[in-house]
Amino acid sequence: MHKWNRKHLLSIEELSREEILTVLQTAESFKDISLRPIKKSPVLRGKTIVLLFYEPSTRTSNSFSLAAKRLSADVVNISVNASSVQKGESLIDTAKNIEALKIHTIIIRHSRAGAPMILARHIDASVINAGDGYHEHPTQALLDMFTIKQRKGFFEGLKVTIVGDILHSRVARSNIWGLSKLGAEVTVCGPPTMIPVDIEAMGAKVSYNLKEAVADADVVNLLRVQFERESGVLFPSVREYAAMFSMDDEMEKYLKEDALIMHPGPINRGVEISSRMADGKRSVILEQVTNGLAVRMAVLYLISGEKEKTRKSSL
Amino acid sequence: MHKWNRKHLLSIEELSREEILTVLQTAESFKDISLRPIKKSPVLRGKTIVLLFYEPSTRTSNSFSLAAKRLSADVVNISVNASSVQKGESLIDTAKNIEALKIHTIIIRHSRAGAPMILARHIDASVINAGDGYHEHPTQALLDMFTIKQRKGFFEGLKVTIVGDILHSRVARSNIWGLSKLGAEVTVCGPPTMIPVDIEAMGAKVSYNLKEAVADADVVNLLRVQFERESGVLFPSVREYAAMFSMDDEMEKYLKEDALIMHPGPINRGVEISSRMADGKRSVILEQVTNGLAVRMAVLYLISGEKEKTRKSSL
Amino acid sequence: MHKWNRKHLLSIEELSREEILTVLQTAESFKDISLRPIKKSPVLRGKTIVLLFYEPSTRTSNSFSLAAKRLSADVVNISVNASSVQKGESLIDTAKNIEALKIHTIIIRHSRAGAPMILARHIDASVINAGDGYHEHPTQALLDMFTIKQRKGFFEGLKVTIVGDILHSRVARSNIWGLSKLGAEVTVCGPPTMIPVDIEAMGAKVSYNLKEAVADADVVNLLRVQFERESGVLFPSVREYAAMFSMDDEMEKYLKEDALIMHPGPINRGVEISSRMADGKRSVILEQVTNGLAVRMAVLYLISGEKEKTRKSSL
Repeated sequence: MHKWNRKHLLSIEELSREEILTVLQTAESFKDISLRPIKKSPVLRGKTIVLLFYEPSTRTSNSFSLAAKRLSADVVNISVNASSVQKGESLIDTAKNIEALKIHTIIIRHSRAGAPMILARHIDASVINAGDGYHEHPTQALLDMFTIKQRKGFFEGLKVTIVGDILHSRVARSNIWGLSKLGAEVTVCGPPTMIPVDIEAMGAKVSYNLKEAVADADVVNLLRVQFERESGVLFPSVREYAAMFSMDDEMEKYLKEDALIMHPGPINRGVEISSRMADGKRSVILEQVTNGLAVRMAVLYLISGEKEKTRKSSL
Repeated sequence: MHKWNRKHLLSIEELSREEILTVLQTAESFKDISLRPIKKSPVLRGKTIVLLFYEPSTRTSNSFSLAAKRLSADVVNISVNASSVQKGESLIDTAKNIEALKIHTIIIRHSRAGAPMILARHIDASVINAGDGYHEHPTQALLDMFTIKQRKGFFEGLKVTIVGDILHSRVARSNIWGLSKLGAEVTVCGPPTMIPVDIEAMGAKVSYNLKEAVADADVVNLLRVQFERESGVLFPSVREYAAMFSMDDEMEKYLKEDALIMHPGPINRGVEISSRMADGKRSVILEQVTNGLAVRMAVLYLISGEKEKTRKSSL
Repeated sequence: MHKWNRKHLLSIEELSREEILTVLQTAESFKDISLRPIKKSPVLRGKTIVLLFYEPSTRTSNSFSLAAKRLSADVVNISVNASSVQKGESLIDTAKNIEALKIHTIIIRHSRAGAPMILARHIDASVINAGDGYHEHPTQALLDMFTIKQRKGFFEGLKVTIVGDILHSRVARSNIWGLSKLGAEVTVCGPPTMIPVDIEAMGAKVSYNLKEAVADADVVNLLRVQFERESGVLFPSVREYAAMFSMDDEMEKYLKEDALIMHPGPINRGVEISSRMADGKRSVILEQVTNGLAVRMAVLYLISGEKEKTRKSSL
């Protein structure tokens, strides 16, 4: 299968259908490792993985950190508050100084779209985008697709509905790119203020009515409401949002029997989803977390192989 | 000896005398490891231990973290300020998301009594209570008992006096449960406002006079004064507390020649204890720190064995 | 070669010429490890290295932490904000409690000059000074000397100019001690308010004119301007400082063709140095970062050997 020639993982947009499938296939073997009593593989022994997070995050950084440790890498955590970034150093200077420690991969989260690409252009280490502004969050989309693959087995013609603030969601953007490449049909659903005007150009259909949007969906992916910045601006209130776009108990009857309910977490119970639906038979929300680890191990592994090749050829 | 059938360590109250002795005996072998040049055992290789601390702590978290590393485990630190807990997620959702990373044990510290029990009921991973509200701090009591065993060799009829704010001390509660089970005679001593009314039901005697309380004590365990919340509420001032309940130089003549002085740390020199007494021949305060590591290695090891058994039998 | 009998690294002042050369020579082998695909040596396996930082730092702490991990040590990070130091515990009590965890080495950074020496007198573990007040920063000077050795090959008669706030620079002090011992000629250059009155007693020449000071320099080491505390006190403004002491494009014509430009980082582009000079052919600023890792691995290794010897002889 091995179709992987990339040193970086910057976006889903740039990946081919075959590259995406390679990640998903590789993730399967790594999922097995996570289910073994001794969850350890030596493939990154003696390599250093740096997490450079300019936005706070526990889930994504723990997931990457654990993925790296289970591959026997050394892990260095740099969060913006503790770092000399505060002393006014530029992103590139920071990265070049990290790279001078002879590290293997920088995993970056940044509030500015495009930051990972800038990094990749300026340093020799591998770069993984762990979320950049409203642009992309490629490993989240890969773990979503991996979860769908494990449950449904196929993508061609599969109907996936993404619900919420599509406009400000890097998760939505990465999912739309990926699912479209794999042949799934994506519908986005949310208040008109939260749907980008150019979304149909990305290959997605639009709906403003949740019942209609989920009626024949095989997968419903609910985005997280960002209370802190949205309430009162993009919609009148959380209550109003929930009344129209919540996957509440009421919604169950509109869903297909075997529909999957997904959410990137952390969930707001009673807002995007009711407790019964979050913990119900259709929910694969916790599976997504488990799969995130496998997908990130796969990405670290694939990139690492490519990196060594590049180095060898440059000798 | 092996008398251990528990997947969790939630309290001393629930442990039998034999179980306590099993931990203490196991800790002896692990203490040896800490004194070797290469302080490493492979027993938890490939397992992930998560520290989930909702209250700040350096000592306890470093001690657990180092115990886990010396057993070759991977360690993930989650402190509440950095975590998505702040985004309003419930304890159980947080724990279930951590567990989905296929981790082995969650070590939790929480300001709410009972939080570790709630966790243990809802997740499949092992849970260790690292202090819950005013309830219990089982590993602290185990390390206190281990220190007493190493120094005194026996518990039956041993007189132990615990001094300070008994009412708000999880350390005191865990010690009283444990020492009583092992046959020691516990006396608590402090200002009346700091002695719980039901303490005699737990098997402890009460004294309001330090000189009397330590006169025939084999062990004196001094609790830490929590300046930040107590001064002016439970006693008029730190000065007044110290005048009546401090183990100062003056007190030495009331102590038995071979009495042990213990303290869970960090000590307030000049408050609970004078410098001369803290650094004197009776003090085993730093030994407690060393023993804490051995006891926590023992607990992680015992729980791990039991966990594997549970899993095997559930196949 | 092996000329190393120290259990601690507290200052460059106390090191002999031979000891310095031993560190530099040892660092060469460790630099090789950092350039290998598997950057791992087992020499500190089963040992615990503690980073006790009372001042914030990313670079130095990452460099030490990675050095320790590449030598297979377990690493514990204690930063003052998260620690019980806040609860009013003294430096010595904190250190004794850390030592009771049976750790091997404490790497300390402290705002008070002399703190590492105090520690070394009171505990049995090895102590490494990672910067103490305005006193010394020995590993920074060692990495600077290592970089010079790799580029120039010799020290005898080499002209090194250090530019900036000499008065408040532990980097400058450590460099002056070290370079003088190795036979280099050191000139310091900066505004009169930033030059200590007794500097000539340390063996350095003084200049207040950058052009003159760099004219025949083989190495120019630019210190970082500490905006946060200096502007308006020691010099009228950053602008004025830069006008007189910046290594800007203009300065290039005054430099020797093969002069090295060094800086401990992070650099303030446009203040101490222009972007063209920072990224130019004379700059070895990023090499210094890479070399810092090798030098710190060497120091940890040398101290470790000596520590074991001490222990053996005390059995």
